[in-house]
Amino acid sequence: MGAISSEVLAELTAALPDGVVLTDPDGLDKYRWDRALDPAAEPPLAAVRAECTEHVQTTMRWATQHRIPVVPRGAGSGLSGGAGGIARGVVVSTERMREISVDPVTRIAVAQPGLFNAEVKKAAAEVGLWYPPDPSSFEICSIGGNVATNAGGLCCVKYGVTTDYVLGMQVVLADGRAIRLGGPRVKDVAGLSLTKLFVGSEGTLGIITEVTLRLMPAQPPAHTLVATFRDTRDATAAILKITSTMRPSMLEYMDNASINAVEDVMKMGLDRSAAAIVVAKSDAGDQREIDTLLDACHSNGCTECFHTDDETEGEMFVAARRAVIPSVERKGRLLLEDVGVPVPRLPDLVAGIEKIADDRQVVIALIAHAGDGNTHPLIVVDPSDPDCERRATLAFGEIMDLAIALGGTITGEHGVGRLKRPWLRDQVGDDVLDVTRAIKNALDPLGILNPGTILD
Amino acid sequence: MGAISSEVLAELTAALPDGVVLTDPDGLDKYRWDRALDPAAEPPLAAVRAECTEHVQTTMRWATQHRIPVVPRGAGSGLSGGAGGIARGVVVSTERMREISVDPVTRIAVAQPGLFNAEVKKAAAEVGLWYPPDPSSFEICSIGGNVATNAGGLCCVKYGVTTDYVLGMQVVLADGRAIRLGGPRVKDVAGLSLTKLFVGSEGTLGIITEVTLRLMPAQPPAHTLVATFRDTRDATAAILKITSTMRPSMLEYMDNASINAVEDVMKMGLDRSAAAIVVAKSDAGDQREIDTLLDACHSNGCTECFHTDDETEGEMFVAARRAVIPSVERKGRLLLEDVGVPVPRLPDLVAGIEKIADDRQVVIALIAHAGDGNTHPLIVVDPSDPDCERRATLAFGEIMDLAIALGGTITGEHGVGRLKRPWLRDQVGDDVLDVTRAIKNALDPLGILNPGTILD
Ligand SMILES: Cc1cc2nc3c(=O)[nH]c(=O)nc-3n(C[C@H](O)[C@H](O)[C@H](O)COP(=O)(O)OP(=O)(O)OC[C@H]3O[C@@H](n4cnc5c(N)ncnc54)[C@H](O)[C@@H]3O)c2cc1C
Ligand SMILES: Cc1cc2nc3c(=O)[nH]c(=O)nc-3n(C[C@H](O)[C@H](O)[C@H](O)COP(=O)(O)OP(=O)(O)OC[C@H]3O[C@@H](n4cnc5c(N)ncnc54)[C@H](O)[C@@H]3O)c2cc1C
Repeated sequence: MGAISSEVLAELTAALPDGVVLTDPDGLDKYRWDRALDPAAEPPLAAVRAECTEHVQTTMRWATQHRIPVVPRGAGSGLSGGAGGIARGVVVSTERMREISVDPVTRIAVAQPGLFNAEVKKAAAEVGLWYPPDPSSFEICSIGGNVATNAGGLCCVKYGVTTDYVLGMQVVLADGRAIRLGGPRVKDVAGLSLTKLFVGSEGTLGIITEVTLRLMPAQPPAHTLVATFRDTRDATAAILKITSTMRPSMLEYMDNASINAVEDVMKMGLDRSAAAIVVAKSDAGDQREIDTLLDACHSNGCTECFHTDDETEGEMFVAARRAVIPSVERKGRLLLEDVGVPVPRLPDLVAGIEKIADDRQVVIALIAHAGDGNTHPLIVVDPSDPDCERRATLAFGEIMDLAIALGGTITGEHGVGRLKRPWLRDQVGDDVLDVTRAIKNALDPLGILNPGTILD
Repeated sequence: MGAISSEVLAELTAALPDGVVLTDPDGLDKYRWDRALDPAAEPPLAAVRAECTEHVQTTMRWATQHRIPVVPRGAGSGLSGGAGGIARGVVVSTERMREISVDPVTRIAVAQPGLFNAEVKKAAAEVGLWYPPDPSSFEICSIGGNVATNAGGLCCVKYGVTTDYVLGMQVVLADGRAIRLGGPRVKDVAGLSLTKLFVGSEGTLGIITEVTLRLMPAQPPAHTLVATFRDTRDATAAILKITSTMRPSMLEYMDNASINAVEDVMKMGLDRSAAAIVVAKSDAGDQREIDTLLDACHSNGCTECFHTDDETEGEMFVAARRAVIPSVERKGRLLLEDVGVPVPRLPDLVAGIEKIADDRQVVIALIAHAGDGNTHPLIVVDPSDPDCERRATLAFGEIMDLAIALGGTITGEHGVGRLKRPWLRDQVGDDVLDVTRAIKNALDPLGILNPGTILD
């Protein structure tokens, strides 16, 4: 860090209350990586633990004046490297912005960005309401991060993704101005859909300091079905049968490697020999839906099928599904994919990923929000084997190429971040990238907001 | 029209197939007004009845070269003046772009913009599927116009608005490039949410030439309830009771003036003395929802309450609600409002509008998509009375001021267009307008796309 930097940094520290700006190298380690563990992430110059919108504004004014890159950061659970540190920049962390108020009559919550998703759900539940979006990481990801990535989850096959629940927000622009978009109105078309543009912008257009969320009446009790299959093709056929005839409130998939990784850790008695497990839920309170689920599994050769209307029992299977990423993480470093395809192409995607694993001789555990065609191939890298690293990296790219070839997307919910940036052009083309860059330049002309994320 | 213009126009005519470009003044009258009947709308220089994306591209390249304003136009049912003609510009009409294909397995439709909303619904229904968004104008508005305005409707209180069903689109930019955004994927976060930005952009960022729509399984049969109230305050109290406890699949309101206007035309036997009628639907197949509806109306002093699970009978009441705008239109020219508020402020908004009508001595018929807090005060202007015109215009502005004061919006679903542009700043403020303008300039640097709409 040169002389100018330390003087400039002192300006920021002086402009904010004691303890807000962290510059101690040890403490900064926490702000270096997100859960993608991108090897290219660097320790930042400083971390600003903002306590209010004004702190974020002060930081952005300072950053604009000195042209310093700023990485917005929620809880750092991101899987695309978008919250990773930049050596010549600062991180703005929202971890201290944790207020929430729920209005049960308007059925909205106004939350600061640093609250965990689980805390938002809890505050809603306290007045009998429900905030649906449920990324598997709901206990360790922030609501601001969810909005910034347009996070998905398990119930979105029926209930939609984060953007469907964002009615408004406060956001600090690159130049430090704070604007309010939308508000506690269910319908509002006054002007361009800016709220929707900021959702999913991955910290490249502004820093979200407050969100207004739409809540729903409590979810009705659900019926859970768990089916095991001897062949992954049978499992995906059952999934297609389900999605083309009904709207399950959850439709998840885990393959043999995932089952075994979870079983190693949790010892739940899952069938280690199964090729795949499908977990489905129906909350419509309609026996015909449950019959449809059963029929779809049985007529596609499931080997075992268990169903229950006991919520706790049902949640155990969902917990197994949620445990896959942390369980597989114990086997090595993960290259975590997030490709999606139009639902009817799911069987081709699953078969294609199996082939890539075979060709490249790497372990790929596959889980999927199957009902939306969104899969997470988890490529396991043995850190002690450089050739494995090389093969895994090849497989990572090949899986994205495959998804694009199948009319799909390189990212269904985790975002482009820094890790997938090189593939974005292949999916969307030059003209869409141009438009993206034009909008980025219009809102962040100095390019100080999360440089390297989405665009280079 | 000067000499240059006619030469320049001849270039366009020559670049497109015979019959695509219309320059005959009589024929052009059709392209002058939308349903707002904005007195400031002018006959355009020409109308391009594009038959494919390439025709739109050719037109935009020509317009860019000569800096000619272009007004995109669907079916001209808009109520904000956004499709009105500009004397020095051309209209691009999508009326001839009418193809659609439905994929029942992926559960999507790919439609050209010129189809009516009703035709999209019909194509979906033919394979047992459902396209939910249902503006009252569904038989006379185009799907492209719906996407460009992010149209709402009657079922959106439960099923959301147009943006919730748009998975992707093809759009021609100001410079003539055609880009594809999104696609037949339920989840896709690859890059900025550009699809969502173009939805609701009212023809100011590009011309939509194809849309990919998400479809749903057929809507379950609904139970309909119709309740009459002696006092509008009782009716709004019943509405609040309903929205805070359940999710009706429709929740509409019509006041005494609306009831009488419909009764004059349709002779349905509606109670002409009622202060308000509430029409509600429940499609959850759950008796408790129907009981909740009944209880909300009875406990708030409804004078009569009728309910039925006969779909045809239920639709009669919805037809009455849909007939309000055309029926009131017979009483004079309408200034059609579209203000919305957070649902709990609905009683204040309704009472405030009654007061404005009283103060300004104008007839205001009030209908509302009450469940979303979105109201349509229909201000009746007697064209033979200039003072009435003046008072109506004052009331038009005062209603928007009231909505803003109640934390609401100047437009819930019709768009800003040209008529509401002067009020946008009051609602969103200078900084949001700056951001809006920055994005507009980034995508349409010459300002040729629908100038005067949203921004001046
Ligand atoms: C075990 C596990 C399971 C997961 N399952 C899912 C899943 O099911 N669905 C899913 O969608 N994701 C999932 N994720 C990924 C991750 O949890 C989500 O992307 C989440 O939304 C990130 O939130 P965060 O607070 O951790 O954000 P961070 O990781 O801190 O940041 C993510 C991105 O958002 C930006 N950002 C964060 N906060 C703000 C802000 N206030 N303003 C502007 N930009 C901001 C950052 O710059 C970065 O680009 C999972 C992750 C793990 C580790
Ligand atoms: C009786 C009646 C009832 C109505 N009820 C409702 C209702 O319940 N809910 C509701 O939301 N609206 C309602 N409307 C308003 C209107 O029908 C909607 O705004 C509708 O979406 C407009 O569609 P259109 O095809 O007629 O568009 P137009 O009127 O032709 O255009 C509307 C706007 O969209 C732009 N546009 C049109 N097509 C394109 C395109 N392909 N690409 C880019 N821009 C384009 C135009 O430039 C203009 O700014 C009603 C109107 C009437 C007359």
